[in-house]
Amino acid sequence: MTEDLLARRARLMGPEVPTFYRNPLHLVKGEGVWLWDKAGKRYLDCYNNVPHVGHSHPKVVEAITAQALTLNTHSRYLHEGVLDYIERLGATFRHETTQAIMVCTGSEANDLALRMAQAVNGKTGIIATDNTYHGNSALTSGLSSRRPPVGGYPQNIIRVPAPDSLAPVGGSREGQAQAFAAHVKAAIAELETRGFGFSSLILCPLFANEGLPCVKKGFLDPTVAAVRAAGGVIICDEVQPGFGRAGEAFWGHEVLGFAPDIVTLGKPMGNGHPIGAVFARPDVMRAFREVFAYFNTFGGNPVSAAAAMAVLDVMEEEGLQQNAREVGAYTLDGLRSLSHPWIAEARGQGLFFGLEFLTPEGAPATAFVADVIEAMLERGVILNNIGRNRNTLKMRPPMPFTRENADMLIAALQDALNSTPVRA
Amino acid sequence: MTEDLLARRARLMGPEVPTFYRNPLHLVKGEGVWLWDKAGKRYLDCYNNVPHVGHSHPKVVEAITAQALTLNTHSRYLHEGVLDYIERLGATFRHETTQAIMVCTGSEANDLALRMAQAVNGKTGIIATDNTYHGNSALTSGLSSRRPPVGGYPQNIIRVPAPDSLAPVGGSREGQAQAFAAHVKAAIAELETRGFGFSSLILCPLFANEGLPCVKKGFLDPTVAAVRAAGGVIICDEVQPGFGRAGEAFWGHEVLGFAPDIVTLGKPMGNGHPIGAVFARPDVMRAFREVFAYFNTFGGNPVSAAAAMAVLDVMEEEGLQQNAREVGAYTLDGLRSLSHPWIAEARGQGLFFGLEFLTPEGAPATAFVADVIEAMLERGVILNNIGRNRNTLKMRPPMPFTRENADMLIAALQDALNSTPVRA
Repeated sequence: MTEDLLARRARLMGPEVPTFYRNPLHLVKGEGVWLWDKAGKRYLDCYNNVPHVGHSHPKVVEAITAQALTLNTHSRYLHEGVLDYIERLGATFRHETTQAIMVCTGSEANDLALRMAQAVNGKTGIIATDNTYHGNSALTSGLSSRRPPVGGYPQNIIRVPAPDSLAPVGGSREGQAQAFAAHVKAAIAELETRGFGFSSLILCPLFANEGLPCVKKGFLDPTVAAVRAAGGVIICDEVQPGFGRAGEAFWGHEVLGFAPDIVTLGKPMGNGHPIGAVFARPDVMRAFREVFAYFNTFGGNPVSAAAAMAVLDVMEEEGLQQNAREVGAYTLDGLRSLSHPWIAEARGQGLFFGLEFLTPEGAPATAFVADVIEAMLERGVILNNIGRNRNTLKMRPPMPFTRENADMLIAALQDALNSTPVRA
Repeated sequence: MTEDLLARRARLMGPEVPTFYRNPLHLVKGEGVWLWDKAGKRYLDCYNNVPHVGHSHPKVVEAITAQALTLNTHSRYLHEGVLDYIERLGATFRHETTQAIMVCTGSEANDLALRMAQAVNGKTGIIATDNTYHGNSALTSGLSSRRPPVGGYPQNIIRVPAPDSLAPVGGSREGQAQAFAAHVKAAIAELETRGFGFSSLILCPLFANEGLPCVKKGFLDPTVAAVRAAGGVIICDEVQPGFGRAGEAFWGHEVLGFAPDIVTLGKPMGNGHPIGAVFARPDVMRAFREVFAYFNTFGGNPVSAAAAMAVLDVMEEEGLQQNAREVGAYTLDGLRSLSHPWIAEARGQGLFFGLEFLTPEGAPATAFVADVIEAMLERGVILNNIGRNRNTLKMRPPMPFTRENADMLIAALQDALNSTPVRA
């Protein structure tokens, strides 16, 4: 059956379409933190952040259904839904990013945010971190592409080394904040030399794709100062850390204690409904609208707004940010209690965890981590890897994750670690 | 009330957010071809193509609800839904564009299609028509931008004059096909001179944004020959003409009788659910996958696939393509029966119409058309304008448009034309 589907995919979607697992999962049902495959096997989902308030949450579906049966049009007509949502979400920021353009995906959000920054300062140079992902559009894929696009890498984009827990930029954890800022300063100078000028720095405040390194409040302060001094704009991609996942804060950038000029949102925002947004300060939005005409057909339509609003309702009703803080801390304790000679570090922020593995020689245990992921699937737990070398287990469950779920994850992990042969 | 919403929009969305009408509509309900505003006034929707099978169609909502309550995950797991859809829609093409990547918007589709073409021939030059719109991403907005982006217009994009009904390229309708092809050939040569090389020609097969000019089967044959001779790729943007709207054919390019290498889809595909797609020949898809890594989180998820599938079901059950052909012809007859000295031409293809107005001196009657649009709103009919000079009324109703709806449109139009003072 699974082979049939793989053959059909190759015929209908072409070659090299990405899948997870050596034998890709054929899923048929999801509920809360659980997924079921075609054979009826149940899996604890410790990976997917799109179903933010839980797979198939009935309240979100109800909101979508009710609005879709009533009206679904674009925003060139007036509707309260999108305004109520922007007002409510904008109030969660501790700074003035209170105006928004609603879009359909995180890619659209970042593609737009980069152009907003260019409108602010009239420059076109962009700085990103070195193993990041900010989207799949032509512009955003240039930030993260592993294969050079046709025509070569864009010369107006420079990538700087992201912070790392075990191999810190500049050689020490203490000096990492200054060393990171120094790389950004050098990139700013290089963009000026190349004639583009420096427009924006875009980053995930938890550096999620680079392995979720331990960075603390204030880490970005020297970088923010350097960007501001150069007239640049800071774009904070909150697709992964946002919406309460960080536990102690609603937004990832609050954890680091800085105020971005633009915040971009995507995946978890509509619990699977395609929705994203760019929040910006009024002066940034004004500068953008003076230069660019922009309209998004589906963005912020009444159904999308209803879906996104329902996600916020459920988060409040079920206390999901508090849950992320409490169960996140509990889970991190569990990860730290695991026993295996190749464990290098257990890290976490709210309900987002990294478990890094190094060989006794200090090399990335990439192959071992890949085997552990497969061993966990056998044990009914879905997780994945992150980091430059993909030697860090990535756990990022739906927000209603419980202590019992955490216990199951930790027990399965210890068992998988015990029984997976080590190989680098 | 409306003023309150406008003030809230300015505060929450910033300045210059596009709206329709001098007093923007505050809509609260939609059903079939009808929309209702806050005051309870009913409008005949002769403009919106996103609600393809009718506003709030219960079968589409039912499909979304059922799937969203069951499972909604990304395509790195296996699921039949997206495969069933690609197989079914791919079978509607009379050529080999049978493989697809599902995305969330038409913008994402075109942004991706342009890169597919670049992967095929290793060139980066793009040709588009001169008053078109293919999306709002950084790349696609460069095809249609009315204001230069920061850093200037991309040098790898050249716009050629689109066909025109009353001011044909080359001076005569008979010579227009050859004249259009000659402009494309000149642009190909220029892209070679500039060093980009020629990658693709992207166009809407009905040239909808340029005023829906009368072009007949075979019109693009000389152009297609020129593109093929240069090793280029033809991208057909079917966002507006596709899905049976053209009446006599399921796709706009069938009306012209040519076979594109890539077809892009958007707006009507999910009846308002954010979904789009790129269909391509297997050799094109293979070339793309060899060069680019591409994954779209929401694209082709089970809910999107269910929404899009339900649209096809409704189209078949309600005979909507046939309806577009029959009621389209009936409506066009009605438009041709209208009486006003400034009417220059009534044009149509299925359920898509243009009614062009010129002053007695032959100038575009742009202001008059704007006044007629407002007069039609007063009479409870929603339509809009198109064309380089916005002097053509645009009518593009939901597909279940009936003869009675057409009668109401025509009667309201004659009344509005009679009572709107002429001004250029």
